[in-house]
Amino acid sequence: MSLTVVGSVAFDALETPFGKRDKILGGAATHFGLSASFFTQVNAVGVVGGDFGDDEWAVFKRHAINTDDIQIVPEGKTFFWKGRYDYDMNTAHTLDTQLNVFETFAPSLSEHSRNAKFLFLANILPMLQKQVREQMPDARFVAMDTMNFWITSMKDALLETIKVVDCIIINDAEARQLTDEPNIHKAARAIMDLGLKAVVIKRGEYGATLFTRNGYFATPAYPLESVFDPTGAGDTFAGGFMGYLASHDEITDDILRRAMIYGSVMASFNVEKFGTERVDALDYPEINQRFKAFKTMTHFDDIPFERAAGA
Amino acid sequence: MSLTVVGSVAFDALETPFGKRDKILGGAATHFGLSASFFTQVNAVGVVGGDFGDDEWAVFKRHAINTDDIQIVPEGKTFFWKGRYDYDMNTAHTLDTQLNVFETFAPSLSEHSRNAKFLFLANILPMLQKQVREQMPDARFVAMDTMNFWITSMKDALLETIKVVDCIIINDAEARQLTDEPNIHKAARAIMDLGLKAVVIKRGEYGATLFTRNGYFATPAYPLESVFDPTGAGDTFAGGFMGYLASHDEITDDILRRAMIYGSVMASFNVEKFGTERVDALDYPEINQRFKAFKTMTHFDDIPFERAAGA
Repeated sequence: MSLTVVGSVAFDALETPFGKRDKILGGAATHFGLSASFFTQVNAVGVVGGDFGDDEWAVFKRHAINTDDIQIVPEGKTFFWKGRYDYDMNTAHTLDTQLNVFETFAPSLSEHSRNAKFLFLANILPMLQKQVREQMPDARFVAMDTMNFWITSMKDALLETIKVVDCIIINDAEARQLTDEPNIHKAARAIMDLGLKAVVIKRGEYGATLFTRNGYFATPAYPLESVFDPTGAGDTFAGGFMGYLASHDEITDDILRRAMIYGSVMASFNVEKFGTERVDALDYPEINQRFKAFKTMTHFDDIPFERAAGA
Repeated sequence: MSLTVVGSVAFDALETPFGKRDKILGGAATHFGLSASFFTQVNAVGVVGGDFGDDEWAVFKRHAINTDDIQIVPEGKTFFWKGRYDYDMNTAHTLDTQLNVFETFAPSLSEHSRNAKFLFLANILPMLQKQVREQMPDARFVAMDTMNFWITSMKDALLETIKVVDCIIINDAEARQLTDEPNIHKAARAIMDLGLKAVVIKRGEYGATLFTRNGYFATPAYPLESVFDPTGAGDTFAGGFMGYLASHDEITDDILRRAMIYGSVMASFNVEKFGTERVDALDYPEINQRFKAFKTMTHFDDIPFERAAGA
């Protein structure tokens, strides 16, 4: 079934210990869409400026992402973010943010995008997320992201948005901040109590955890000896997660668990090169090989301990 | 097979957000020994002062831990540590350390302790660890702990000790510090290259990872909604890990993996109450129930993704 994503399409400038890039394709909807496109048909909803060129459109086209709902403002400039990562690679230091055409972004969904059964609301203004969600009353499964800025500046609106989705995918600092609860398990349960079916907590190099009404699932991250560029890893995770879900008729806990792994798989590829480079060039054997690697690295035999007599 | 542990036996004073204790049984050999005693016969090697009383000895006795090699210095006082935990519970703030009889601790192993096939060198002076290891040339599997203080103050001696053991069990900050390598996977491989068979990295609330010559295994921590007192969690992990290994004739990667889970199981109990209280009162059904919970919370079906035609 098809999957609609609403979020930023951007140009990024990056400085990492491994090199720099002045202007590469980025944005939440981009990273999410590319990742999800391996699992299902994706509709991207966003806005770009006149500086968005053929090379950029080609990336979407290669992955059969429907870009009809990416508005073009010919006289405007595309959202631009500049960031730096130091050696620990866990924290992005923002050097510059130019919202440009994204500042007045008003998502407009075609009938095709609205008819998708799955929806991901990437990190945008909570009120906009809610408006989009309300345009798709028949969506089967709706997930959202958010960020510390909205938690601080418009928590009430954010809570209203959370109440109308099925799942939130955020990092552990955000979950703690949203609930004023230092224990991550209590924080996740408190968020769940807003009416969600699932809460996904991203923990960077430590993996990710899934809370459902009756279940708990934890996966480590893929063991990478070099992380090249973590930009977009969270959206790439969400893309693998939601894309995998959207390839199923029914959402069960078992499918949510495998979606967590596919999300982790896609995120692990994303960070291996700058920007969208690695995911853009992926193929299915690579994806399934890494899925298998997650199984191998987490498996143990369920053999209960029995103390030998006299030992 | 029996398992010998060399390390501190102590009194702890603790302040946590959930209460305080002025003087409770603690120490690495204590936490390790109690935990391991559920899986195998344990010999504890340490030193205490004349203030070590019947209640303390009774804890060891209840778990059939051989204390013949715990020296008693009647005119001395037992090692004393005072610490405080704030709400995040990840960092112990040391308020007072009185080495007392531990300052001149010279481990002396009886023939019974020396004949054990498994040995754990808890966090003591690296040269002492090496001396003990050399007293047990026939040991089948020797693991060690260490701490930031020795990495800073006597790294060369520490490296010489690491070279004569089979396994090191340390936390991620220590692994990074030991190797000057921020990436934990590179750090672990660098430590492995000193000649180890296994490197175990403890990551607190994020779980633990096992590196072997050809393998990698990662487990999350048990999801605890309240952590009461983390003191001794690392030694309790090591006790479950080594105790489980010592209950087997042969060490395979599969057994090491289950040992990681039993270590995590025991550590998860340790933090639920002050000091040794919770582990002291454990039973086998509880242990195996939680082992099973680790299986449940990490399991996913190994079903590779196949894109439906036309999707």
